[in-house]
Amino acid sequence: MTAEVKDIEKKVQVWKLVLAYDGTEFHGWQVQPQRATIQGELRAAIERVTGENVLPQGSGRTDAGVHATGQVASFALAAPIPERNLAHALNRTLPAAIRVLTAQRAPEGFHARHSARGKTYEYRIFRGEICPPFLARYAYALNHPLDFEAMQRAAKRVLGEHDFTSFADSDTGSERPGNLRTILSSEWIRDHAADSIAYRVSGNGFLHHMVRNLVGTFLEVGRGNLGEEEICRVLGERARASAGPTAPARGLWLVAVEY
Amino acid sequence: MTAEVKDIEKKVQVWKLVLAYDGTEFHGWQVQPQRATIQGELRAAIERVTGENVLPQGSGRTDAGVHATGQVASFALAAPIPERNLAHALNRTLPAAIRVLTAQRAPEGFHARHSARGKTYEYRIFRGEICPPFLARYAYALNHPLDFEAMQRAAKRVLGEHDFTSFADSDTGSERPGNLRTILSSEWIRDHAADSIAYRVSGNGFLHHMVRNLVGTFLEVGRGNLGEEEICRVLGERARASAGPTAPARGLWLVAVEY
Repeated sequence: MTAEVKDIEKKVQVWKLVLAYDGTEFHGWQVQPQRATIQGELRAAIERVTGENVLPQGSGRTDAGVHATGQVASFALAAPIPERNLAHALNRTLPAAIRVLTAQRAPEGFHARHSARGKTYEYRIFRGEICPPFLARYAYALNHPLDFEAMQRAAKRVLGEHDFTSFADSDTGSERPGNLRTILSSEWIRDHAADSIAYRVSGNGFLHHMVRNLVGTFLEVGRGNLGEEEICRVLGERARASAGPTAPARGLWLVAVEY
Repeated sequence: MTAEVKDIEKKVQVWKLVLAYDGTEFHGWQVQPQRATIQGELRAAIERVTGENVLPQGSGRTDAGVHATGQVASFALAAPIPERNLAHALNRTLPAAIRVLTAQRAPEGFHARHSARGKTYEYRIFRGEICPPFLARYAYALNHPLDFEAMQRAAKRVLGEHDFTSFADSDTGSERPGNLRTILSSEWIRDHAADSIAYRVSGNGFLHHMVRNLVGTFLEVGRGNLGEEEICRVLGERARASAGPTAPARGLWLVAVEY
């Protein structure tokens, strides 16, 4: 390695981006050949702005149709870009469905996935009879009667550290080895004015499909098909078949990543 | 005409539908070959539900990208459908971006366009620095400084009956002969919490592009490129070139049709 190359490497700057996106028209986060993805669009935008071909790392993958108000991505650039210019330049070239909310220099070694300490997700359900077209992409419409209080009590039963194998479709996309995860908050929120409810959950990490499978299971409790006290048995059985179905992607929002 | 045919004609029932739609992915209201339109989707849904091929008439056309929370459509059906079933059956087969809010039997002779006495439109503008992806389809994002009070005063100058030729791209889609229209209310509304403003206008009818051209002209006033008192001159000149540009379709909402 020549002295010149070393010199360039020294000047590499790690960037931390906070992103919001409407996931409806993307094939999820992860770059795929011939398909529009969030990571792919972001990589292309970075290259158009800086001329550098880097693959931005997300805090985790989001599936097709899943939205974000606070996804985090990291990457390193050699070009010395003023901090206040990068978000603006990327937003000029990104599709309107993806917005860079903030772009900040991060300390050396920062990695959107490896450095993450926790995440918060929200799952939105429209409860009215006719889902407005302007919400159809952003919430799951479910007009069936639900026992909200039972769902709330069921949600509390996943608090703390558990093996969430029953709620994982596979290990793909999980942030930590094994299936033990700690849930720090888990609650249903009612919004009477908007005719909607939402499940909000924070934890140190989530398995692939875990939030959607938790929601699908809580909805089984709400419909009376599963007792709220059976959540502990479902967790203990460590078998996907024990839990409820996977709730549709469009209701899921990655709200924030904590570092 | 045989007695049997007369008998069937007697039983025809006129229906009035109130519709909400996200116009982003449709080529406007009016049916077109090989293109998805609101009218075309609605006709196909009516045929799937009733087996009858009728062309629903709208209160007026909306352009590609324009949304509605209260568009009205009318059509006649021979099939005797219970009133409470039609909306539900249509919503089961329509795309989620189009919803039938209500379906009611209407008196003989009712016609969504000919019977309309007035309409209300709203034009939404997002004023923040970064437009959330979830609003990008539903509002025009404009972060440029605007003199809101001057725009408000300009809006008042179109109240009453005027010849709106300066604000019409063409006569296509207009509801009444000639270009005289009466504006009953015309105001800008500020929503600080949502970082947005909206122009709300009611009148006895609107020319093609009229609301978008009014908004484009009021924005010229807001930017200081046109004096608020010049609105009267623009109206008097009866020339499209005298008014401002056409504001983008995505900010426009057909809110209600009055009968």
